Amino acid sequence: MKITDVKAICTAPDGIRLVIVKVETDEPGLYGLGCATFTQRPLAVVTAIEEYLKPFLVGRDPAAIEDIWQASFVSSYWRSGPVLNNAMGGVDSALWDIKGKQFGVPVYQLFGGKSRVAADVYVHANGSDVREVEDNARAYLEQGFRHVRAQIEVTGYSTYGVGSSQSVPSTNPKPSESARLKVEEKAWEPRPYCLLVPRLFEHLRNTLGDEVELLHDVHERVPPIMAIQLAKELEPYRLFFLEDMFAPEDNEYLRMVRAQTAVPIAIGELYVNVHEYVPLIRDRLLDFIRVHISDIGGLTPARKLSALCEYFGVRTAFHGPGDTSPVGHAAQLQLDLSVPNFGIQEAHLFGERTREVFPGCPEIRDGAMWSNEQPGFGIDIDESLAAKYPFPEHPYNGAWPEIRRRDGTVVKP
Amino acid sequence: MKITDVKAICTAPDGIRLVIVKVETDEPGLYGLGCATFTQRPLAVVTAIEEYLKPFLVGRDPAAIEDIWQASFVSSYWRSGPVLNNAMGGVDSALWDIKGKQFGVPVYQLFGGKSRVAADVYVHANGSDVREVEDNARAYLEQGFRHVRAQIEVTGYSTYGVGSSQSVPSTNPKPSESARLKVEEKAWEPRPYCLLVPRLFEHLRNTLGDEVELLHDVHERVPPIMAIQLAKELEPYRLFFLEDMFAPEDNEYLRMVRAQTAVPIAIGELYVNVHEYVPLIRDRLLDFIRVHISDIGGLTPARKLSALCEYFGVRTAFHGPGDTSPVGHAAQLQLDLSVPNFGIQEAHLFGERTREVFPGCPEIRDGAMWSNEQPGFGIDIDESLAAKYPFPEHPYNGAWPEIRRRDGTVVKP
Amino acid sequence: MKITDVKAICTAPDGIRLVIVKVETDEPGLYGLGCATFTQRPLAVVTAIEEYLKPFLVGRDPAAIEDIWQASFVSSYWRSGPVLNNAMGGVDSALWDIKGKQFGVPVYQLFGGKSRVAADVYVHANGSDVREVEDNARAYLEQGFRHVRAQIEVTGYSTYGVGSSQSVPSTNPKPSESARLKVEEKAWEPRPYCLLVPRLFEHLRNTLGDEVELLHDVHERVPPIMAIQLAKELEPYRLFFLEDMFAPEDNEYLRMVRAQTAVPIAIGELYVNVHEYVPLIRDRLLDFIRVHISDIGGLTPARKLSALCEYFGVRTAFHGPGDTSPVGHAAQLQLDLSVPNFGIQEAHLFGERTREVFPGCPEIRDGAMWSNEQPGFGIDIDESLAAKYPFPEHPYNGAWPEIRRRDGTVVKP
Amino acid sequence: MKITDVKAICTAPDGIRLVIVKVETDEPGLYGLGCATFTQRPLAVVTAIEEYLKPFLVGRDPAAIEDIWQASFVSSYWRSGPVLNNAMGGVDSALWDIKGKQFGVPVYQLFGGKSRVAADVYVHANGSDVREVEDNARAYLEQGFRHVRAQIEVTGYSTYGVGSSQSVPSTNPKPSESARLKVEEKAWEPRPYCLLVPRLFEHLRNTLGDEVELLHDVHERVPPIMAIQLAKELEPYRLFFLEDMFAPEDNEYLRMVRAQTAVPIAIGELYVNVHEYVPLIRDRLLDFIRVHISDIGGLTPARKLSALCEYFGVRTAFHGPGDTSPVGHAAQLQLDLSVPNFGIQEAHLFGERTREVFPGCPEIRDGAMWSNEQPGFGIDIDESLAAKYPFPEHPYNGAWPEIRRRDGTVVKP
Repeated sequence: MKITDVKAICTAPDGIRLVIVKVETDEPGLYGLGCATFTQRPLAVVTAIEEYLKPFLVGRDPAAIEDIWQASFVSSYWRSGPVLNNAMGGVDSALWDIKGKQFGVPVYQLFGGKSRVAADVYVHANGSDVREVEDNARAYLEQGFRHVRAQIEVTGYSTYGVGSSQSVPSTNPKPSESARLKVEEKAWEPRPYCLLVPRLFEHLRNTLGDEVELLHDVHERVPPIMAIQLAKELEPYRLFFLEDMFAPEDNEYLRMVRAQTAVPIAIGELYVNVHEYVPLIRDRLLDFIRVHISDIGGLTPARKLSALCEYFGVRTAFHGPGDTSPVGHAAQLQLDLSVPNFGIQEAHLFGERTREVFPGCPEIRDGAMWSNEQPGFGIDIDESLAAKYPFPEHPYNGAWPEIRRRDGTVVKP
Repeated sequence: MKITDVKAICTAPDGIRLVIVKVETDEPGLYGLGCATFTQRPLAVVTAIEEYLKPFLVGRDPAAIEDIWQASFVSSYWRSGPVLNNAMGGVDSALWDIKGKQFGVPVYQLFGGKSRVAADVYVHANGSDVREVEDNARAYLEQGFRHVRAQIEVTGYSTYGVGSSQSVPSTNPKPSESARLKVEEKAWEPRPYCLLVPRLFEHLRNTLGDEVELLHDVHERVPPIMAIQLAKELEPYRLFFLEDMFAPEDNEYLRMVRAQTAVPIAIGELYVNVHEYVPLIRDRLLDFIRVHISDIGGLTPARKLSALCEYFGVRTAFHGPGDTSPVGHAAQLQLDLSVPNFGIQEAHLFGERTREVFPGCPEIRDGAMWSNEQPGFGIDIDESLAAKYPFPEHPYNGAWPEIRRRDGTVVKP
Repeated sequence: MKITDVKAICTAPDGIRLVIVKVETDEPGLYGLGCATFTQRPLAVVTAIEEYLKPFLVGRDPAAIEDIWQASFVSSYWRSGPVLNNAMGGVDSALWDIKGKQFGVPVYQLFGGKSRVAADVYVHANGSDVREVEDNARAYLEQGFRHVRAQIEVTGYSTYGVGSSQSVPSTNPKPSESARLKVEEKAWEPRPYCLLVPRLFEHLRNTLGDEVELLHDVHERVPPIMAIQLAKELEPYRLFFLEDMFAPEDNEYLRMVRAQTAVPIAIGELYVNVHEYVPLIRDRLLDFIRVHISDIGGLTPARKLSALCEYFGVRTAFHGPGDTSPVGHAAQLQLDLSVPNFGIQEAHLFGERTREVFPGCPEIRDGAMWSNEQPGFGIDIDESLAAKYPFPEHPYNGAWPEIRRRDGTVVKP
Repeated sequence: MKITDVKAICTAPDGIRLVIVKVETDEPGLYGLGCATFTQRPLAVVTAIEEYLKPFLVGRDPAAIEDIWQASFVSSYWRSGPVLNNAMGGVDSALWDIKGKQFGVPVYQLFGGKSRVAADVYVHANGSDVREVEDNARAYLEQGFRHVRAQIEVTGYSTYGVGSSQSVPSTNPKPSESARLKVEEKAWEPRPYCLLVPRLFEHLRNTLGDEVELLHDVHERVPPIMAIQLAKELEPYRLFFLEDMFAPEDNEYLRMVRAQTAVPIAIGELYVNVHEYVPLIRDRLLDFIRVHISDIGGLTPARKLSALCEYFGVRTAFHGPGDTSPVGHAAQLQLDLSVPNFGIQEAHLFGERTREVFPGCPEIRDGAMWSNEQPGFGIDIDESLAAKYPFPEHPYNGAWPEIRRRDGTVVKP
């Protein structure tokens, strides 16, 4: 068998810029799909795929997945990073999809079979005050979810994880624009957030009880030492995990966290380089690895990373918001079902249009994600329908919003 | 003197599969007994003894205990592990029994004599709610026990240490068998357990007072970070020790425990390899070493291990439930009485039938185990009576029950 | 599909006690083979398979390899060790063989495909003096081998790796048997060996040149500090690797080796417990991991171990002498061909009778081992022929020879 | 049985001040002997025994050795140190002697039996030039010794280990006596020694060949960094061990030694406190533990120390010059014969008069020390004969000679 084509398909049925890789073979009807979505820089990924990976791979045997990964990795000489990793990751996953289809089985069968019937997921409950978060969480619980991430708006501040803030360009004061030094609409200050979050979880534990698993995402925006204080204040509320306490550049602060609190640590969605995560795992500084599978290079490295984590008691919690496409979800579900050290899967409840574009999108019910038991990833893409949803207009073509402090200082993210 | 025979005797007077080694000598009437019970894999131990150790040892001088241990250890080339260790451990203990009988003294005399009159023991108080645990604990206190391990049933879950769950094969859904994802009869979830246990100890301290020594066994079933949180929540109740917070594979998490809490740590009943326990002791990551003596290779390594522990302030708390046979208890009592760093001994109150099969079974009274001051271990086996109690039928020949999570994931144990 | 039977087949066509696991399914003609050979304690492995794993596994889905591994691992409660690991390892490999056959492809295809066309091997050149070793090495080079392990007899001493000493029980004096203190036929002293080996490699480099890759196996028999001196003396001869400098119990001395010499380190054929090898890999104290795949539990853990090693720059060099059966060789070849961090494969040139019993035995040519590209492992067993070669008689049923020092002290091994 | 008397017997048949403890019991004819020799402060030890240990112990059960050790240890409140350790050590060994006699067996039988037929020893070859050292070494080799410690006189300097310098008070310049700053007769300078010693071993290897095991004792007298340089210069001569590179106060320099050279390290004859040796063993900074058994408190701690060392790959090499009395030698021989990790025993060839005073003195032949296989230690003391050899006159009652540098600075020792 030979690879005959490698395509990058861009689509945004529900507004999120998705990039899907399609690897075609000379076996009639046999192709594979992989997610290569880097929603802030999708066109660079498309370029990497079409200009570099496609000519490099056409004519090769799609069964030699490991060999293709290693050869592609070094073919750029300068390696790793989100553009190249996502491009490779999309291809790599597509090759596993092909292999599963070739054998007529879900890919998890190639990974050693199923270790559980379905993959528990967590969902996002947000709100502008504790009551609204509670209500949203309660609605999820009534739908059968058992794990809820709770985020609360810090009034007057541009808060992560509430509303539609992610895709709106910032209107915060920039240094050159403003002489004021007061709290702007949409500016960000860490202190009010750190004061509010423990109150949120106190409220949720009082109202929702002890058994629901609660999660929270700091999303880097707090200075390290303040994040550590926050973690300690949150410990009594028994979070399932606390996510992204630090920007990747600061993750060595996890050593201090481990010395002072037993809050379960989840981190990893920004990692694109082994030096960002291997030392943390080796030294047991985290409990849940949160990598975005295409962002580290696809199922091949994710499979190995799961093994690494197993040796050190670390569980998986792969990144799974809306910019992990349905194809990406269907791919990581194969690992979620097979690895012994699965922890949790972040869920995204895709809209109707996205589900139409991606027939076979994994089902979420009873608080878990289920395989449809079809060969490969069991998912397809309706290319003509996909073509109807081009990338939306955006002043910066999809950049992460520009969050700034009251004084105009840029904040990580 | 020469070894003339090495036999493995299987018996289950009260339903637990026991393996006893009998080493016979050419001196009329002089033989030794050792416990080699590995109740989940007894027949593999029997094979190791009868097919390999017996021919290797017949004709050797039973006095050369250390030499026999070293020669046996390397005679398998691949070494350690529960099957070979138990086989060696049964033989090794039997040789010490012979030596004691040869000199007409209890074996503790060869270990430097008695350092205490009797060995304090702890007993197991279980129950389906806090009141029942309290009642059972109180009953023990009235019998003179001063140390009580308390375990509580988590309603609706397959809980360790309560009832007869240990010997029943699991009926949990396996990934390939079930499409349901609800809490099954006999499934296990760690969170409800972690919420309940601090309430148990709060209750016990309120009702039983501060003087009784309370112990608890986590028995591995909780993710490491959650076990650490539990330990911190239990700290106010001043446990005598908290046992098996982690599976052996995860025991490096004890470093984090030591950084965050002063709960006394007991661990070790699963250890079969020096690399599992020497680093923990060397770095003072535990307070009580809980090895099962035959499972590390018998009294010879246990004697040395006690010495190692003494240098690092670690006390002994040898494993002693019902699958440590009366012979095993009589053997470890010799160390309990002689080593300066004795901590506690786990007791098992053997049934009438077991006591008949093993005349001389150590007496437990006044909350402690006592030597009968007879030569060797002071215990015998009535082989014809033992033969009347064959191993019971069991679908998997005695496997540890297959505990699974709600989603079908295998749980350590 | 369901497992219908699990059998342990004993055979010794060329005198080495081999144990092969055969897992049968309810799909006509579909079965898998795995090697479970523990040649010093084979019958204990057979008991573990037939009495415990067989009842535990019959009726399960053979596709759920990971789940079966995890469930089997904890079903014995006390875990790891060579007996239980080999039993599990034989079953685990057989399940991968089934999966490959089910899909009609070699198993390496499930591991990500081929990363190389064949696996370089090394062979054993021995001799009673430097000239004889040279001649034997030269003969291998002429056959196309590029990697040669060289071992030399230390005249008058029981030397590892030369002649047939491995399967002959020792006649050395035991402490209780002998009053003599001279060098016995078959005694062992480390110093003469350490003086001789550098002379061997000086000779081989002088006569065979610099391009041939030379290897050497210390086989534990030297005190740690003397082994370190030896390594330093061997550094100028640029070994491909130096193997088993230390007994597993002493492997922390590798830290000192790393501080003083750049001799490439290979170790691991005795490892049976993660605590023996994970810290070494994590801290990059070795260059080649030499585990015996069934001895760590089969292809499932070996696959993960290869991934762990890849993160730390460690290459594979799986154990492959004659007590890795042809089935074991065919199984590990699947990893050799697929993992990116393959280092070398130890070869055994099986005799005619063994090759007849095992049709499909991997071919060795051009200094490498080749897949026959048949489904699964591509190897079978002729059971009726196998039955004609029962285990040979041996006073200790196959124990490793009892090596002793001049003074009677037991030597590791 | 009860202890009826504890006596300290002083004798010096060949000029060395020996202190022997005799513990008597109410069993007719049953008593034990132990060495408590601290030849620089013997009378303080005698006082400790007679004034403190005797009243404390009379009436106790001599079988409770461990209990007596622990009770005696804390009975002084301030503990450890050579005076108290030797007093306790003499008593402790005497109690083991009693126990062996009580059972009618050599004490090694209580320690697990014999692991070797005899204990290899090393002897001392000294000389005023390389030729004389060679001649003396050769004479030993001809007598069947295989291990020789070689020390050479540094002409014009007060050199350790040559001649009878140990018992002569120094006549070196003291600061207050001399205005000269030149090399005095009997002064000491480290540089000439460090220049000479490598030449000695080069000569010995050239003349005696590679197989003889050579040892050397630095005896602390060199600044740490210079000792490390010396060790590196000696590495090519493959010493069996290099002894006492540092004063106890400087032994943390062993970390630097381990980083730079593989010379085997022996140290310990001055250790009197666990903090001096446990960290070194735990961190594998030495190869041979050289403690003086009575100086650490007797056979009870020495037995445990041997076990500690076994876990870390360290071998025993107990201190055994002339100030270890024949009783001390007979006692430590029990460990030499039984522990698996025996390394070497320092021998002293006692004079005729000493052998008469101590009937049963261990025999040295064929390069090893042999048990006479008599009960206990198999040694006795002829008290009336002993009384004929009182301690010799000495200006400082036996002080270690006062070694000084050229400028009058005191040197360790």
